[in-house]
Amino acid sequence: MLLPLLAPENKEEFSLRIDKTRSAMADTKADAILIGDTSNIFYLTGGVFNGYIYLTADSDPILFLMPPSEIPGENAVRVRKPELIPAELSDRGMNAPKTFGLELDDLSYSEVARLKALFPDAALANASAIMRAARLVKTDYEIRRMREDGMRQANVYSRIKHCYEEDMTDLEFQIEIEHILRREGCLGYLRAAGRRMEINMGSVIAGRNADEPTPYDFAMGGAGYDPSLPVGASGMLMEPGMAVMVDMNGGFNGYQTDMTRCWTIGEVSDLAVRAHLCSISILRDLEKFARPGVPVGDLYTRARSLAADAGLEPYFMGHRHHAPFIGHGVGIELNEKPVVMERDRTPLQANMTLALEPKFVIPEVGALGVENTYAVTDQGLECLTAFDESLHQL
Amino acid sequence: MLLPLLAPENKEEFSLRIDKTRSAMADTKADAILIGDTSNIFYLTGGVFNGYIYLTADSDPILFLMPPSEIPGENAVRVRKPELIPAELSDRGMNAPKTFGLELDDLSYSEVARLKALFPDAALANASAIMRAARLVKTDYEIRRMREDGMRQANVYSRIKHCYEEDMTDLEFQIEIEHILRREGCLGYLRAAGRRMEINMGSVIAGRNADEPTPYDFAMGGAGYDPSLPVGASGMLMEPGMAVMVDMNGGFNGYQTDMTRCWTIGEVSDLAVRAHLCSISILRDLEKFARPGVPVGDLYTRARSLAADAGLEPYFMGHRHHAPFIGHGVGIELNEKPVVMERDRTPLQANMTLALEPKFVIPEVGALGVENTYAVTDQGLECLTAFDESLHQL
Repeated sequence: MLLPLLAPENKEEFSLRIDKTRSAMADTKADAILIGDTSNIFYLTGGVFNGYIYLTADSDPILFLMPPSEIPGENAVRVRKPELIPAELSDRGMNAPKTFGLELDDLSYSEVARLKALFPDAALANASAIMRAARLVKTDYEIRRMREDGMRQANVYSRIKHCYEEDMTDLEFQIEIEHILRREGCLGYLRAAGRRMEINMGSVIAGRNADEPTPYDFAMGGAGYDPSLPVGASGMLMEPGMAVMVDMNGGFNGYQTDMTRCWTIGEVSDLAVRAHLCSISILRDLEKFARPGVPVGDLYTRARSLAADAGLEPYFMGHRHHAPFIGHGVGIELNEKPVVMERDRTPLQANMTLALEPKFVIPEVGALGVENTYAVTDQGLECLTAFDESLHQL
Repeated sequence: MLLPLLAPENKEEFSLRIDKTRSAMADTKADAILIGDTSNIFYLTGGVFNGYIYLTADSDPILFLMPPSEIPGENAVRVRKPELIPAELSDRGMNAPKTFGLELDDLSYSEVARLKALFPDAALANASAIMRAARLVKTDYEIRRMREDGMRQANVYSRIKHCYEEDMTDLEFQIEIEHILRREGCLGYLRAAGRRMEINMGSVIAGRNADEPTPYDFAMGGAGYDPSLPVGASGMLMEPGMAVMVDMNGGFNGYQTDMTRCWTIGEVSDLAVRAHLCSISILRDLEKFARPGVPVGDLYTRARSLAADAGLEPYFMGHRHHAPFIGHGVGIELNEKPVVMERDRTPLQANMTLALEPKFVIPEVGALGVENTYAVTDQGLECLTAFDESLHQL
């Protein structure tokens, strides 16, 4: 059995994860996979090391550790470089795979090319897709970790209003929120798949900055304050009549929850208040609508049509630019599958976890709306980030 | 000419960078490259957008912008997806490349496979290597940006001792330093090449935590405080007799400088003090020794032999585990070329920038030593992170 790095008492949990991975392997043709991506290693072992995990359909997983990682255990083998892996396997009487799975979406072309050469005769399968499928539905243990994470994030959010002082910039406000997050144990590193989510610890977006597009894959934009990192807070003064959207990092224990709340400086326009209330009522609706079997894309179309019914479609998920989704899977990484967009037809299953963020951008006022992280249950959605959703003045 | 996103007054600067890139292309066989990595896009344009830059040996670079990025200019073309690029080029009368350069070390296997299919008959070249070669020697403008960055980082370091309070943990101390860094304008996002540098904003390492190996590519380790992110501060109490190493992020303007200073809690052992002084004297020596033409690996062997002369080799670059380098290139990314290790024979050139960090780990005491970022000049090294290097008590 795989030796878990985190919690030796959790043998069953990790053997469940191996089973889930093997069942995703069976859906492809991969008879072996070699896993090197940090998020996937953390999923399979509860820890992070330098090296790879080799997993087949029927034999115990093997940890190939490269310096300086050292883990005791009979299925942990130290190798100087990946080229030594085939000889180790053959010493153990294991055959070369016929179809070899590598993380094509997570590792660089060069790294995959190097690993592919370990078994030059094998066909190539995409282990990124296999691991996404295995991780799509969370285990009960993972849900408990995310519930804990959400409670810690909500605890910080309850103190956000105390971070505000008059005549602050959006950035100054964000920095004080980061400071509390870190003091409360947030790891501060936002783990995400792909290369399109460069950010510090989340974003605070105020006023017209909400309408500035970002080149990154975030639902809301923001110009940032330096051309090298065009996302989020711009350093602008927060002034009466503005909405301030806080979408800051929840990542305390290796799992993440995603959560947004909004405040205002003084009064904001009726349109802005209506948009915020509409976001809340969309969430209330989806919390009941989203059940196992419902295609995830239907959540998007339902949210958009509720926004349209309220006459708010021009502001839905942006004003100058509209994000084509209202949410995403979340777990070890911030941006897991599924994507809550029209064309994603994945049927919901119990224990999937989704961040839902039906948001609006009202010109000159800012971004409005609420984001919660949910676990799918047979009765609908369980909110993991419970905290007052109303629009209060700072 | 390429339309710079950052500074239209800096046309000459960006045309210099294009020339440097073309000269690196000429050293390979690539007649065209397609650039998508954020750091390389920032290098070539002064900004970040969603999309790619297409560059050939002789025609104006073309920016292919994908939504929501919008940049005005006759050589900026909006495309919905990369598959539309070849038709755009052929409309402009441009031929398909014979050898096509893609960023094989920076983009995922899947992304490269998709882009490679744009020109299925072309041979493949590694544009990551081309861009590393172009960026190896900085322009005068880049050196000025890094000088500015180093001054801002040194300014924060001058206030670090005021972050300390008695009975603090290493993590609490780090969080207060992060807070000042952010308030002084640090972007908080540590841009690095590859997937082996997951970290928040740097690290504070105290006492025996210095001897804990990290799976990441940092010179010094630290166990971290959660199994999902095993690096840096562990949450341990900082107690008399310990050394505290501060290696925190300098990244204020799209460029980075790398800087380490150490403090102590009360008195530390003579061995620890000697190790710290040895690090400083190694730096003084290398500042004169490092001149254009010297192979960078010679800096490593010289540093190691100075450490050995002082009887400190068992502690050099770690105690339980020894990092095989004493520094690295730095610029837009924290870990640029060259690597200051024995087998890197790259000859130094004026305007290369190097972070040099000859450090020691003294068991039970902690990590000692100094790191500065330098620019190579004909007269030796210019220090970009000038600030008191002595070992003071907190």
